[in-house]
Amino acid sequence: MVYGSLDIGGTKIAGALVDEEGGLLARVQRATPARGSAYELMAAVTGILDELAVHSAWSGLSCLGIASAGPVDTAAGTVSPVNIPGWRGFPLVERVRAHPGVPLGVRPVLVGDAVAMTAAEHWLGAARGRDNALCMVVSTGVGGGLVLDGRVHAGRTGNAGHIGHISVDLHGERCVCGAPGCVETMASGTAIAAHARELGWTAPAGTAPDAAAVAAAARTGDARALASFDRAARALAAGIAATAALVELETVVIGGGVAQAGDVLFAPLRRHLADYAVLGFTRDLPVVPAGLALDAGLIGAAAVASAAPGRDTAPVVTAPAVC
Amino acid sequence: MVYGSLDIGGTKIAGALVDEEGGLLARVQRATPARGSAYELMAAVTGILDELAVHSAWSGLSCLGIASAGPVDTAAGTVSPVNIPGWRGFPLVERVRAHPGVPLGVRPVLVGDAVAMTAAEHWLGAARGRDNALCMVVSTGVGGGLVLDGRVHAGRTGNAGHIGHISVDLHGERCVCGAPGCVETMASGTAIAAHARELGWTAPAGTAPDAAAVAAAARTGDARALASFDRAARALAAGIAATAALVELETVVIGGGVAQAGDVLFAPLRRHLADYAVLGFTRDLPVVPAGLALDAGLIGAAAVASAAPGRDTAPVVTAPAVC
Repeated sequence: MVYGSLDIGGTKIAGALVDEEGGLLARVQRATPARGSAYELMAAVTGILDELAVHSAWSGLSCLGIASAGPVDTAAGTVSPVNIPGWRGFPLVERVRAHPGVPLGVRPVLVGDAVAMTAAEHWLGAARGRDNALCMVVSTGVGGGLVLDGRVHAGRTGNAGHIGHISVDLHGERCVCGAPGCVETMASGTAIAAHARELGWTAPAGTAPDAAAVAAAARTGDARALASFDRAARALAAGIAATAALVELETVVIGGGVAQAGDVLFAPLRRHLADYAVLGFTRDLPVVPAGLALDAGLIGAAAVASAAPGRDTAPVVTAPAVC
Repeated sequence: MVYGSLDIGGTKIAGALVDEEGGLLARVQRATPARGSAYELMAAVTGILDELAVHSAWSGLSCLGIASAGPVDTAAGTVSPVNIPGWRGFPLVERVRAHPGVPLGVRPVLVGDAVAMTAAEHWLGAARGRDNALCMVVSTGVGGGLVLDGRVHAGRTGNAGHIGHISVDLHGERCVCGAPGCVETMASGTAIAAHARELGWTAPAGTAPDAAAVAAAARTGDARALASFDRAARALAAGIAATAALVELETVVIGGGVAQAGDVLFAPLRRHLADYAVLGFTRDLPVVPAGLALDAGLIGAAAVASAAPGRDTAPVVTAPAVC
């Protein structure tokens, strides 16, 4: 049995054939024509499917998952990725299904990219064996997904776990989404770099003034860099504590570029979490780095598709312990 | 088939026999000896069970649910109600099970009172037919429970849905729980009354200066009373929007004493919600008053117990669409 998957991002579109242990049998990718038309974008996806369909393992294809940058609407099968303006409400599921290489019995399953990452971490990564987990991507933006009662909880439209856009500062700065004080306004890589600059920090000559440079400065003890990471960590802690109070969690997994800062992020995050997560059932919540790196989207989309109840093909695969 | 239930609160302890349509066949209650010893408290519960056990319908008992003021630990079967200091980690499930009137095959099922209210609203109240709902009690404190994918999501220890203790103001006033800026610090009846008094409002002579009096003043246009309800509504809106972003909701149900304020609460709440719930999948979320009143705890405990997978007796009852 082979699981197919696609991962649609603002920079690249990737595809893979994944075996029942989560190993990649094939992997292809193309640059996303991010400013292209809906047609040009779909042509890139078709190209990926063409390449996968000639692989010898394709004949064993039992399901096909699609992870996409959000917003997605899994109920409608459409995607509207913020960074891909050519697709607004684009019927990606229907178009992928119509590809001549996709077997008639295989109905593609769409999932948001943070939910896919969550499924991958639950199957093979740092949330493995955990029945209740929050998995986060802290990068240019802040995303997340939930595992509840041993299954990925994607929500009716596939957007559950949207921790980047919960307000933890009800009078705070307006987020790009329009709401005040979202976690993302303080904790995204963009926000970390902007706040450090506001505090007077400047990147060394020849270095981009981004979150990675702020992290490097924090490691050398720069107070402004440390203050910016502390502010991000506090916002993340408040958001994580809220999630734990709302659904009960056993673990929190954090991946994405900003998480590469390591203890510069995790140390203040754990300290603030002890201040915000004080109820008996939220206390002492482990926060750990993600276990998988670049291909979490492809692996997670495969996991979700393999376990989807709506799958046309016969028995639901139980190997990946996700829904 | 008859469902038994108990509802343990700081003021009263109630018990009931509930039929398969949610009707109360019998209902008994006693004042809670709230300052009493663990033994005196349990004697009150035993008295309730004694009274129920002589009812003619008791012979058809198929399950027994216990709703309790929190915190509870459903995994351990223990309760530690904040307002009942004589019980800390008290093994209520084990003690109820040992009552001689409880049939051997009936294993009592413990649930937090807000989760029980949620189960009742889902079975027979304002969340009926909704697969994803947040039900809240806004009263002396602020509690809540979740319905996800058509089932009550109680969490591993029965405390999920704890919306009163999520921080929506990360630099805000410390809550009794110890964390900064919890919803409850602004939206509980206690907080509404205290804030109105801080703004200079005073209750009419002979009237208790509580949230109900503030609501009455708001109805006459008192600016300080309106400001206090507006602050409460904003905190609730931020918390509801966060919950919707995290799990995806179809409806929000609000009960409890403060909800009796009607439009004084619901009008500013809906206005603020439009400001905080701005993502495509969180927008236009209905917020409605609870459908059940006083006996929601008893009815909900029965509903949860009747559908609990761990029940010793034969087939899981499917009538209440919970768990």
